[in-house]
Amino acid sequence: MSDSIYSGLQQLGQATRMPASPDEATLERVPNPQADVAYCVRFTAPEFTSLCPLTGQPDFAHLVIDYVPGGWLVESKSLKLYLGSFRNHGAFHEDCTVSIGRRLVALLEPAWLRIGGYWYPRGGIPIDVFWQTAAPPEGVWIPDPGVPPYRGRG
Amino acid sequence: MSDSIYSGLQQLGQATRMPASPDEATLERVPNPQADVAYCVRFTAPEFTSLCPLTGQPDFAHLVIDYVPGGWLVESKSLKLYLGSFRNHGAFHEDCTVSIGRRLVALLEPAWLRIGGYWYPRGGIPIDVFWQTAAPPEGVWIPDPGVPPYRGRG
Amino acid sequence: MSDSIYSGLQQLGQATRMPASPDEATLERVPNPQADVAYCVRFTAPEFTSLCPLTGQPDFAHLVIDYVPGGWLVESKSLKLYLGSFRNHGAFHEDCTVSIGRRLVALLEPAWLRIGGYWYPRGGIPIDVFWQTAAPPEGVWIPDPGVPPYRGRG
Amino acid sequence: MSDSIYSGLQQLGQATRMPASPDEATLERVPNPQADVAYCVRFTAPEFTSLCPLTGQPDFAHLVIDYVPGGWLVESKSLKLYLGSFRNHGAFHEDCTVSIGRRLVALLEPAWLRIGGYWYPRGGIPIDVFWQTAAPPEGVWIPDPGVPPYRGRG
Amino acid sequence: MSDSIYSGLQQLGQATRMPASPDEATLERVPNPQADVAYCVRFTAPEFTSLCPLTGQPDFAHLVIDYVPGGWLVESKSLKLYLGSFRNHGAFHEDCTVSIGRRLVALLEPAWLRIGGYWYPRGGIPIDVFWQTAAPPEGVWIPDPGVPPYRGRG
Amino acid sequence: MSDSIYSGLQQLGQATRMPASPDEATLERVPNPQADVAYCVRFTAPEFTSLCPLTGQPDFAHLVIDYVPGGWLVESKSLKLYLGSFRNHGAFHEDCTVSIGRRLVALLEPAWLRIGGYWYPRGGIPIDVFWQTAAPPEGVWIPDPGVPPYRGRG
Amino acid sequence: MSDSIYSGLQQLGQATRMPASPDEATLERVPNPQADVAYCVRFTAPEFTSLCPLTGQPDFAHLVIDYVPGGWLVESKSLKLYLGSFRNHGAFHEDCTVSIGRRLVALLEPAWLRIGGYWYPRGGIPIDVFWQTAAPPEGVWIPDPGVPPYRGRG
Amino acid sequence: MSDSIYSGLQQLGQATRMPASPDEATLERVPNPQADVAYCVRFTAPEFTSLCPLTGQPDFAHLVIDYVPGGWLVESKSLKLYLGSFRNHGAFHEDCTVSIGRRLVALLEPAWLRIGGYWYPRGGIPIDVFWQTAAPPEGVWIPDPGVPPYRGRG
Amino acid sequence: MSDSIYSGLQQLGQATRMPASPDEATLERVPNPQADVAYCVRFTAPEFTSLCPLTGQPDFAHLVIDYVPGGWLVESKSLKLYLGSFRNHGAFHEDCTVSIGRRLVALLEPAWLRIGGYWYPRGGIPIDVFWQTAAPPEGVWIPDPGVPPYRGRG
Amino acid sequence: MSDSIYSGLQQLGQATRMPASPDEATLERVPNPQADVAYCVRFTAPEFTSLCPLTGQPDFAHLVIDYVPGGWLVESKSLKLYLGSFRNHGAFHEDCTVSIGRRLVALLEPAWLRIGGYWYPRGGIPIDVFWQTAAPPEGVWIPDPGVPPYRGRG
Ligand SMILES: [Ca+2]
Ligand SMILES: [Ca+2]
Ligand SMILES: [Ca+2]
Ligand SMILES: [Ca+2]
Ligand SMILES: [Ca+2]
Ligand SMILES: [Ca+2]
Ligand SMILES: [Ca+2]
Ligand SMILES: [Ca+2]
Ligand SMILES: [Ca+2]
Ligand SMILES: [Ca+2]
Ligand SMILES: [Ca+2]
Ligand SMILES: [Ca+2]
Ligand SMILES: [Ca+2]
Ligand SMILES: [Ca+2]
Ligand SMILES: [Ca+2]
Ligand SMILES: [Ca+2]
Repeated sequence: MSDSIYSGLQQLGQATRMPASPDEATLERVPNPQADVAYCVRFTAPEFTSLCPLTGQPDFAHLVIDYVPGGWLVESKSLKLYLGSFRNHGAFHEDCTVSIGRRLVALLEPAWLRIGGYWYPRGGIPIDVFWQTAAPPEGVWIPDPGVPPYRGRG
Repeated sequence: MSDSIYSGLQQLGQATRMPASPDEATLERVPNPQADVAYCVRFTAPEFTSLCPLTGQPDFAHLVIDYVPGGWLVESKSLKLYLGSFRNHGAFHEDCTVSIGRRLVALLEPAWLRIGGYWYPRGGIPIDVFWQTAAPPEGVWIPDPGVPPYRGRG
Repeated sequence: MSDSIYSGLQQLGQATRMPASPDEATLERVPNPQADVAYCVRFTAPEFTSLCPLTGQPDFAHLVIDYVPGGWLVESKSLKLYLGSFRNHGAFHEDCTVSIGRRLVALLEPAWLRIGGYWYPRGGIPIDVFWQTAAPPEGVWIPDPGVPPYRGRG
Repeated sequence: MSDSIYSGLQQLGQATRMPASPDEATLERVPNPQADVAYCVRFTAPEFTSLCPLTGQPDFAHLVIDYVPGGWLVESKSLKLYLGSFRNHGAFHEDCTVSIGRRLVALLEPAWLRIGGYWYPRGGIPIDVFWQTAAPPEGVWIPDPGVPPYRGRG
Repeated sequence: MSDSIYSGLQQLGQATRMPASPDEATLERVPNPQADVAYCVRFTAPEFTSLCPLTGQPDFAHLVIDYVPGGWLVESKSLKLYLGSFRNHGAFHEDCTVSIGRRLVALLEPAWLRIGGYWYPRGGIPIDVFWQTAAPPEGVWIPDPGVPPYRGRG
Repeated sequence: MSDSIYSGLQQLGQATRMPASPDEATLERVPNPQADVAYCVRFTAPEFTSLCPLTGQPDFAHLVIDYVPGGWLVESKSLKLYLGSFRNHGAFHEDCTVSIGRRLVALLEPAWLRIGGYWYPRGGIPIDVFWQTAAPPEGVWIPDPGVPPYRGRG
Repeated sequence: MSDSIYSGLQQLGQATRMPASPDEATLERVPNPQADVAYCVRFTAPEFTSLCPLTGQPDFAHLVIDYVPGGWLVESKSLKLYLGSFRNHGAFHEDCTVSIGRRLVALLEPAWLRIGGYWYPRGGIPIDVFWQTAAPPEGVWIPDPGVPPYRGRG
Repeated sequence: MSDSIYSGLQQLGQATRMPASPDEATLERVPNPQADVAYCVRFTAPEFTSLCPLTGQPDFAHLVIDYVPGGWLVESKSLKLYLGSFRNHGAFHEDCTVSIGRRLVALLEPAWLRIGGYWYPRGGIPIDVFWQTAAPPEGVWIPDPGVPPYRGRG
Repeated sequence: MSDSIYSGLQQLGQATRMPASPDEATLERVPNPQADVAYCVRFTAPEFTSLCPLTGQPDFAHLVIDYVPGGWLVESKSLKLYLGSFRNHGAFHEDCTVSIGRRLVALLEPAWLRIGGYWYPRGGIPIDVFWQTAAPPEGVWIPDPGVPPYRGRG
Repeated sequence: MSDSIYSGLQQLGQATRMPASPDEATLERVPNPQADVAYCVRFTAPEFTSLCPLTGQPDFAHLVIDYVPGGWLVESKSLKLYLGSFRNHGAFHEDCTVSIGRRLVALLEPAWLRIGGYWYPRGGIPIDVFWQTAAPPEGVWIPDPGVPPYRGRG
């Protein structure tokens, strides 16, 4: 395994700061070192947080991203910084969830991608957002996320 | 068992409407038909709802009330109406929970009473309120409420 | 073990019908064949049902009765018939639960007895009733009933 | 992401009061900012409450709404207010559940929608109501609601 | 460890048949090879069955026997045969459970013994019987049997 | 219940923004409307987040705060804003957890307070921090937080 | 901690074979490097097996050993070899379990030790054997082994 | 539904004794009152017991019988007597389980039937036997029996 | 059911010893008394143990064998002895598991057979081996073994 | 079973040290002794650890490898050493997981192979990597790994 595929990266192994917004975040990609096979990568982000664009109050979500890479992988530190960049950024749940998925699609041109956003309740009602680019490709192993439903108290 | 202890009740077995506020609610009591022994009565109210006194938004709680009666029992339909009377009433969590407990104490003069209010999250942070008149009396059987803690999503 | 202790029983091994009310039920007792030791007997009755004395609607409860016998045991078929006799009988939860316990105490003069009545919700609010004659006797094995709390739906 | 799609909204970020009935509620919609892809939005409402149209007694439900948007999204605060507007409104379980679903369909013209209403028990018997506009669309990720069955007490 | 302590046994390692009644069963004992320390031995018998002495219908129980041996251990095959001898024998639950415990006490003269009989429901009502010779001895490790309570169905 | 105890509050029912740091946050208190009884208030904050003071990376924690009020209650919206003010603030886990507890103590002069900080893993190792002002007061009902231990993956 | 405390060990880091019987096994000890504090060490051996001394049939057990060391720790490879030495050795359940505990006590002179032997069922009846040197020392954290009870089938 | 469909039954409502063997048992059937729809009936028999045909030792099983009736239902008391008739009858596990299923098929000519026999371990190895007449019919709701697998100890 | 199908068996009901190796074990078969229907027989062996052929260290496995018999059944005592014969026999996991399955296939000529070997961890890494003769036959009820995956600790 | 298939192995049964990197590791294979049937072998490695190639920090993963062997089996000690060789080796999650799978494929030329890498969280976000050579072959038994999703704290 050669590290040279990472030679153009700007953020990995550097002192970095959290970008102030998704627009300022640089999502980076690296060549898929296993591009001749179809496999699935899952990111689970139980620490996602953004702001309500109208009230400025923080929102929280548990995100699960599954993708089957084509020629590129997302570099995980840049993904972490990108996700972290929502920290002080206004974002509606549906748009935010799907746009994260689509930005990854634009960057990575994956064979397939899905994202599930399980948002913490606001006003007692959580929103979940589920998007995938297509039905899962046949012959690739893609397990269920297994996130339990919201129950309130008691 | 004689039903006559219920002869003065105003609400039981009647068409009743939900009182518009706790003040308008008539909590009724009946003589404790088993007043010569110490026992515990538990009410579990997973359907409690009130309004935020400042914003008017609805709040929800899971309440557990345990008491050891003295000379009186709370009549359960009047308790249900009383709890229901918070439906369109403004009430802060701590005050609401403890005041329900205390109103029952004033009415019933029980040997012991406790109330637990497990409020649904607002702004992502649930409040639980726990009050009891004293340490539980010895020799009376009073099980734990067993309500699980709040976990958010994921 | 001799069966003769059962020779006076009226209901066991007979075609019997359900008594129409608790008053008509004959709770029977048999000499405790192990009266020189202290032990605990538990009856679990998840199918208990009575009527609301005012509305006539059926009520349901899960009852757990624990007792440490003195000179007598309750004959279990008569207990079953006695519990079944509440089926078309009006009974308030607290009174019903404690009175079952006390009738057993009157019949059996046990060393100790407790009864837990876990009533199904009415108006969304279940009532639990817990009574014991005293703190459990030391040195006798009396496990916890282990009944989970009510949670509503979701 | 532009906030301007929200510029016509009347309720978001405003001091609002709970509408007095579903008819008075204004369900609002916003353009689907991701309308060129098919994805699923789930709302889980464990705090739904309405009144029995005959007795005026409160009813409670845990609702799960899944939809695949077409050109519109439901604005979540207006949905919250709409669901909250049932608070003092009489509604039968079946009718209420399906009518919420249909009103959303009329507003949103979604590609697909389903609603599950898991009602709290009355008389000991919970009612669940399940409706969907059609079989789920192929290739869209729509997880199971995962709500456990009712068990009563004991 | 010497096997000679087993030299007088009649049943172990022999072709044996199930004794026709508890009276015909020979419970055997062996010297406790660790008699100078206090420890606990647990037998769990989920396959116990006897007959109702009046109706002849089969009864079933899950038995848990814990004892702290004195000078003797019960030989386990003879215990198995003794328990099996109840198969076609009439026995009431309380008497049967306690008498098994007491016969073991008579045989073994243990430092302490308890027996829990968790009987299968009849008429919907299971009976549990719990007996111990005394409070558990201090300083001896005696775990809870951990048998869950009966819940009926659902 | 009078709302006038809230008349001096600056943040409740107002458009507010998240304070930029804990120092800028105004924790507010209201007179304890039930100050003549001892009860426990629990806040559960599964959405707490701060920054690492050295790397600037976000940290997350699940906080549980229990207190027995004296003359004051913390106003919950100001608590929410205070907790939210850590969002862009550097804080070490131990220091952060204990300092939140101590600031509440300084503000509220409670009869008793404890805080548990269950931090999300960093480098695979979560840190839990537990602080209380003293042993819990006798006779007040203070349940266990019930947070499960961390298990890693697999 | 210096490795020199291991300098006298005979088996660690050597090619060893399983001793043919417990008598042939050499249990080794090392100085307790933390002898000035009280803590608990647990060994869990789910692969213990021995032979029935009369029939030669294999027996299986799940062993849990907890001890609070004094001046010595058991060297774990020698413990493994010692436990493995029972593989072709005849041993009754009670004797075997307690004798393992006592051999460790003789070797280690611990502050406290307990052993639980959870034997697989034979004839449908498993035997569990529990021994400890004394009541657990106060102030030392010694969790429950958490082994579930045997249930039969269904 | 008229009771007259029961008019030919010989055992229901009669004093009956347990038949001495399966051959002596009379399995009875009644017309299916809902024969125009496909539904599933489940019997769970956790108290099944027979004898080993060679050693005479008792065997135990937990049986689950599911069937989709055609024109007939099995009369449940006759089924209970039939299952009880195996008590003193020699039967191998495989043969016994399947023959019960087949005898029901011969009697009932159901649309579909399956039987699962979960036998208690002998020599540490339980046998499960599963038989069904065909793959389950499409569109009929037939839940999994949900019987957990055998795990041994630990 | 006739016992005569067992008349040629050599081991059942006899004093037997454990064979010294699989080669010395005599697996016996009996005619399938239900050979005209397709059903599944499951053996669960949580007590399997063999030796590592190179180091002589003991290995342990939990085996689950499912088969759909053709003309023969395996006699269960001979199976137990056969499995026990691996106790002092060297065997690699894959070979051992599959060879047990194949020996059963050679003996029984079943319609279908599968074996799962869940081996205890060595060096922290358990091996599971799964073999079946073909895809499961359609229309035969063959439940999942339900063995949970290995999790390490924590 | 002949041991001679292992005669060329270099590591098994030898004193070995952990290779310093995957390149230095010698993965060994042995002829598949059951090569004429298709079966599945599962390795579960909950203790996998490597280093971050840029920061040098340790990473941990729970690996599950399933394969259907062709002519060869991986020798398990060499696999253990190979997996252990990543300990001080820099490796990205995706590449590492898939390259382990592919190196096994190159060595073994299996009929099918899949690998799941469940990595412990870094920066709060675990990565899971799932690869298989193709859809699972029909007719071979390949159970789900059953690994639960990551949940953070609380
Ligand atoms: Ca909320
Ligand atoms: Ca709830
Ligand atoms: Ca919230
Ligand atoms: Ca979470
Ligand atoms: Ca109800
Ligand atoms: Ca129930
Ligand atoms: Ca029954
Ligand atoms: Ca029943
Ligand atoms: Ca981490
Ligand atoms: Ca783990
Ligand atoms: Ca057994
Ligand atoms: Ca059972
Ligand atoms: Ca066994
Ligand atoms: Ca086990
Ligand atoms: Ca290991
Ligand atoms: Ca959480």
